[in-house]
Amino acid sequence: MEEFLFQAEDLHAYMIRFFQRVGVSRGDAKITADVLITADLRGISSHGIIRLDSYYGMPLEQGYIDPRSPIHVITETPVTALLDGGNGLGPVIAYRAMERCIEKANQSNVAFIAVRNSNHYGIAGYYAMMALPQDMIGISVSNSQPSVAPTHGREAVLGTNPISVAVPAGKEFPYVLDMATSIVSIGRIVVHQKTGKEIPVGWAIDKSGQLTTDPAAVLNGGSLLPLGGDEIMRGYKGYGLMLLVDILSGVLSGAAFGSDVGSPNKNKRANVGHFFGAIKISAFRSKEEFTADMDRLIQRLKTTALMPGQDRIYIHGEKEFELAKQRRQEGIPLHISIIRGLEDAGRRLGVKFDLPCKSGSYNS
Amino acid sequence: MEEFLFQAEDLHAYMIRFFQRVGVSRGDAKITADVLITADLRGISSHGIIRLDSYYGMPLEQGYIDPRSPIHVITETPVTALLDGGNGLGPVIAYRAMERCIEKANQSNVAFIAVRNSNHYGIAGYYAMMALPQDMIGISVSNSQPSVAPTHGREAVLGTNPISVAVPAGKEFPYVLDMATSIVSIGRIVVHQKTGKEIPVGWAIDKSGQLTTDPAAVLNGGSLLPLGGDEIMRGYKGYGLMLLVDILSGVLSGAAFGSDVGSPNKNKRANVGHFFGAIKISAFRSKEEFTADMDRLIQRLKTTALMPGQDRIYIHGEKEFELAKQRRQEGIPLHISIIRGLEDAGRRLGVKFDLPCKSGSYNS
Repeated sequence: MEEFLFQAEDLHAYMIRFFQRVGVSRGDAKITADVLITADLRGISSHGIIRLDSYYGMPLEQGYIDPRSPIHVITETPVTALLDGGNGLGPVIAYRAMERCIEKANQSNVAFIAVRNSNHYGIAGYYAMMALPQDMIGISVSNSQPSVAPTHGREAVLGTNPISVAVPAGKEFPYVLDMATSIVSIGRIVVHQKTGKEIPVGWAIDKSGQLTTDPAAVLNGGSLLPLGGDEIMRGYKGYGLMLLVDILSGVLSGAAFGSDVGSPNKNKRANVGHFFGAIKISAFRSKEEFTADMDRLIQRLKTTALMPGQDRIYIHGEKEFELAKQRRQEGIPLHISIIRGLEDAGRRLGVKFDLPCKSGSYNS
Repeated sequence: MEEFLFQAEDLHAYMIRFFQRVGVSRGDAKITADVLITADLRGISSHGIIRLDSYYGMPLEQGYIDPRSPIHVITETPVTALLDGGNGLGPVIAYRAMERCIEKANQSNVAFIAVRNSNHYGIAGYYAMMALPQDMIGISVSNSQPSVAPTHGREAVLGTNPISVAVPAGKEFPYVLDMATSIVSIGRIVVHQKTGKEIPVGWAIDKSGQLTTDPAAVLNGGSLLPLGGDEIMRGYKGYGLMLLVDILSGVLSGAAFGSDVGSPNKNKRANVGHFFGAIKISAFRSKEEFTADMDRLIQRLKTTALMPGQDRIYIHGEKEFELAKQRRQEGIPLHISIIRGLEDAGRRLGVKFDLPCKSGSYNS
């Protein structure tokens, strides 16, 4: 057994100490820790504590991200705003932007906020879900560092540019779409490489533009493919959605776009762009009518006749809500290699990682 | 040669006469003919004049669509509206809704309009593109009669629910995404059946839930698959987008949704729902800055290193703008079987189809 279970609260509290140690205010440290622990709870481990050092610790230590920079409003109307994140922490900028978007939609029924000069913001779904308790539909998209080739191309020019939309339901879990517009993320390719497994044909290409099953060939100058894959399977639709996210996040905000979007580990502003939306349901129909119909639609989908060998139809977000409930009780599993990485980072920054483990001792 | 070329103007004028003959006002006939001819010009022939009788002529003749019914406003705010289309012609209702959406966004920077009690509206892109001359981003989505199985299912419960977003550029063509959220449309399966060709593995399943290459097996109780296809290729993302379209078009508007959405040829209100949006670019950045950056992003994409055997990267909408220019000059090709169908419908309704043909005579 190479995995050990930790209490979500312990990891959360540790991350807050960690962020404060590298210059983040207590309030902002809490926001960032919330975003990361939500990823781990929901099973999107690639965007959770695994990124603590590489996406946050090191860039903060090296001054590539400025955690004390204020967020500026560039332009604003009752239903829109354009913000400059001042090269601060992505999750903090995104949280503040979505908070403002929800305030505006509370006043005006609908609002959109575009953001420039930010950094990687973690899981897109965190911000979309902020709209749910307000009985709003939440929208969150972001561009990201290039890793995907457009249809007919063999060069990574676009990011995996996620789309998240969250919609309240009644008795059912809310609908929470939270998807990269590529088939899979780079993180998924890295996992295959680390575990010595081939990737399925169709996920990615090598640097010459050929489909490959070798994760190393993707990571060394290759590219991911957009949702849909090749032309026969209409991969240009995934490419179109990916490009749309770049237009809304990068072009509309005046952030970087295309191959100019930076990564957290380079001595150059990443200038990531985001785009957030909130739509108040009661502007169209009463909350009661709407959520009753959401439940009806979800129930209809769940009673669909099944494919052979399948036992259940899922709604988007459902698996993640169930997993989060389980992980809140049972703990969050971390692979020993991740634990060792956290220990190393903690030692380097003087914030020791020595949390109690719920499943035996990892310090044998 | 089984195809003959017709002038777009001639087909357009014929369609206006045709619609007037089945009770449509001259103004509404022109709108509907505009939508259909735009589909043919842009190469989306499955949504063009080929549908004249089955989606419009017959349902109008049989009273399944009411072409004189007024559109009612159910609720309205400065940035939103909910409309009841009164079971009128889909393209007319959609055109009026998008017109109102643009007016609102001109006043308030952003607007969304949901529509219930409509019918099939033709190509989604027509309405999104209405925003382009106003320097706005246009959004158009609609639910549609069930033909797609959700991931793990083998029953058609959702429609091919299209998404269109149009964004102005500068010197380049505008970006116009106009996509079904399934891999392909039912029309594409029908074309394969008519021409005796197998469909590629992965597009669709038979009624038992098995992948099939036989178009007849899809059309007889089978289902299309969502963009992405199977689970390994992340088809649940396409299913998620398809479901989102149903939520916005069907649930938010109070229209039919899921397997309850009707078709144009049943003696029951189709109760199709639509959802439109318009976002004024100048609320975020000046039009000049925005369109210059759109051109830069498009140019960057177009200079991507190419896959072996490919000669060009396309931007969404580009092929269609080029084809429309060509077809406006050279004419629109119609297969002899389509021409015969138009002749039959014209005879039945007393509006003779006898247009001059640009490429020889089809009445040999």
